Amino acid sequence: MKKIPFDINYLLRNFPTPFYVYDERGILNSLKKLQNSFNWCDFKEYFAVKATPTPYILRILGENGAGTDCSSMAELILSEKSGINGEDILFTSNNTPIEEYKKAYDLGAIINFDDTDHIKKFLSKIGKPDIASIRYTPKNAYGTEVIGNPKNSKFGMPYKKVLEGYKIMIDSGIKRFGFHAMLVSNTLSTDMITRNTQIIFEAVKNISEKLNIEFEFIDIGGGFGIPYKPEEKELDINLLSKNIKDLYNYYFNDFKPKLYTENGRYITGPHGYLITKVLHIKSSYKMYVGVDANMANLMRPAIYGAYHHITVLNKFGEYETYDVVGSLCENNDKFAINRKLPKIEEEDILIIHDVGAHGHSMGFNYNGKLKSAEFIYDGEKFKMIRRAEILDDYFSTIIF
Amino acid sequence: MKKIPFDINYLLRNFPTPFYVYDERGILNSLKKLQNSFNWCDFKEYFAVKATPTPYILRILGENGAGTDCSSMAELILSEKSGINGEDILFTSNNTPIEEYKKAYDLGAIINFDDTDHIKKFLSKIGKPDIASIRYTPKNAYGTEVIGNPKNSKFGMPYKKVLEGYKIMIDSGIKRFGFHAMLVSNTLSTDMITRNTQIIFEAVKNISEKLNIEFEFIDIGGGFGIPYKPEEKELDINLLSKNIKDLYNYYFNDFKPKLYTENGRYITGPHGYLITKVLHIKSSYKMYVGVDANMANLMRPAIYGAYHHITVLNKFGEYETYDVVGSLCENNDKFAINRKLPKIEEEDILIIHDVGAHGHSMGFNYNGKLKSAEFIYDGEKFKMIRRAEILDDYFSTIIF
Repeated sequence: MKKIPFDINYLLRNFPTPFYVYDERGILNSLKKLQNSFNWCDFKEYFAVKATPTPYILRILGENGAGTDCSSMAELILSEKSGINGEDILFTSNNTPIEEYKKAYDLGAIINFDDTDHIKKFLSKIGKPDIASIRYTPKNAYGTEVIGNPKNSKFGMPYKKVLEGYKIMIDSGIKRFGFHAMLVSNTLSTDMITRNTQIIFEAVKNISEKLNIEFEFIDIGGGFGIPYKPEEKELDINLLSKNIKDLYNYYFNDFKPKLYTENGRYITGPHGYLITKVLHIKSSYKMYVGVDANMANLMRPAIYGAYHHITVLNKFGEYETYDVVGSLCENNDKFAINRKLPKIEEEDILIIHDVGAHGHSMGFNYNGKLKSAEFIYDGEKFKMIRRAEILDDYFSTIIF
Repeated sequence: MKKIPFDINYLLRNFPTPFYVYDERGILNSLKKLQNSFNWCDFKEYFAVKATPTPYILRILGENGAGTDCSSMAELILSEKSGINGEDILFTSNNTPIEEYKKAYDLGAIINFDDTDHIKKFLSKIGKPDIASIRYTPKNAYGTEVIGNPKNSKFGMPYKKVLEGYKIMIDSGIKRFGFHAMLVSNTLSTDMITRNTQIIFEAVKNISEKLNIEFEFIDIGGGFGIPYKPEEKELDINLLSKNIKDLYNYYFNDFKPKLYTENGRYITGPHGYLITKVLHIKSSYKMYVGVDANMANLMRPAIYGAYHHITVLNKFGEYETYDVVGSLCENNDKFAINRKLPKIEEEDILIIHDVGAHGHSMGFNYNGKLKSAEFIYDGEKFKMIRRAEILDDYFSTIIF
């Protein structure tokens, strides 16, 4: 039974549903858990901004030792506005507009290149980055069922091009190097992450020897999963860390690269809650619970069929089977299909769990729907960290 | 070979890519074609606003005899601001907030009910609509492969409830009635639409006899498809109209209901173009053409695997195989996979076709990406009808 770690009655009395609430202590605990697990090395988590691009959250993560993983102009500026600068930013983008590289360079960010061609353009149009890495896409990564066949990945480079890229950078006079790969998504398998980390370490070792580079860091990517379903178990982060430590000690004796991750979901995912009110109960060929949130507030169930656990405020048990739906004029606007829940009535409050990552940030305005406010609970009080959209926002780009 | 019916060099010289361009004459021609085909009856097209919710376009459609099919507060207000009011608005929503019903009522719109419960709430909380209809979801609709099994549809009511709904409305003193169903999506099959129309007419006939209602209109829904692929043929609208005329004459002798459709895609789909510039060519395990548009500008290929034809400005032939990708940090941010195109170079201009419906309107801001401007060509000149989003728009709801 998933719970909410605060009393939401204050918010319900004062603000219209739907809205997001984040648990600050939960977010910081997840960050600390990750950091503590990897305390055997010089470790840093670069939080994947796209998961939860809200400055309050970026700021508390930054104050607690995290950097940011950015991949667009907006994310670079959000980091800057959240007090995160310089090499606390890792700029990993693909098909990158030159002005975004320029902004990352101006901020002193670590530049992570997606193609040799980008390296050449960067060097000729912008200058020499102080520190840079290359995104590696091996042809033999594990877990292709999760992130797709690497041969169909638009990201990164095969081994040969990676090698060529580092040569270009060495020739240009760049002295400080990192290495990057991002091979899994939302996996709870320590085995899968470990085996992919081995592929990464192996490549680093080889390139290091071939080109005489002492890599300053290795970014093993993100993709550490969270249990969305009640029956799923948490990723065993201590076992994972131990496995990676063994690999690290096997591969790296001459030089000791820092270890970076770029998780989003693992940090914020479990600590966000979408609070929504029941507008209608409808009996048709099935029983439908219609809530005031919709795809605009959370798209993962509609576009990926993703499971999000739902509980009902002050009600317990599993007595009825419902589809929980929004009001968007698309039949996939459903938060749950054939879900067993307590008997629901109008005005009941539903809590949609584990929406702290790729939740609010993925919303759209299709059908004229608006995105909700975001609040955070710091252990004592709630703060609004993003206001709800209003119709004037939606109309703002129209030329009447 | 799909073409663009205007010279875009003026726009390319004066505005940054990517941007949308609509062809006003094409849109009005599609509307007229539909209207002319059904000129044997009292016909009206209610344009599905969610397809292209831009007031300039709603206004020209309204001036040419169309109404609007709205399903949210924003769409009701957009109609109003575009000069479309009263029974030229059909309000078809599901899981509807009461304030949206109120707005529709205040505008004098035709109210289309999705559940008997909604009818009761409307009558008790708002009043008696002058004219109303009910959305019917038959259990035996054709083409379930297109719109999904009706038994899994959150929309509308089964026959028994429809009957109950009309009884409630008759008892309340409502005198003017319509009938509504929406059973297909983007189909090119006249047969499928015809067979579903028969199901609708049959239900109207039965209910009319049972409850002694002379239905004032029948809305047979939208879903008339367009050929996205070059080898696909247009929907044979004249054949479809003839089929429906035969059915109409068979079923309706005593009273002659008006016939309504609520198409979106059929009207604007083929007449919108997304213009984007090539930023990078990348050779990895495949050849990637990276453009400056991304999922934020057009989501259909990424989330539905939808085909959109792509041409290259001033280049012809099919010489190379590319994935055409955006810069969003999601591997599904691809406009085309393994697409044969002319040999492409940086700075080439790509035209993504048939994006006039469910294109711009479906965009999101994930990864901090911004939506583009919209232009329309009226046969003589280009007008900007929506400005591009800027970063300040994206930041506007944040509480720093």
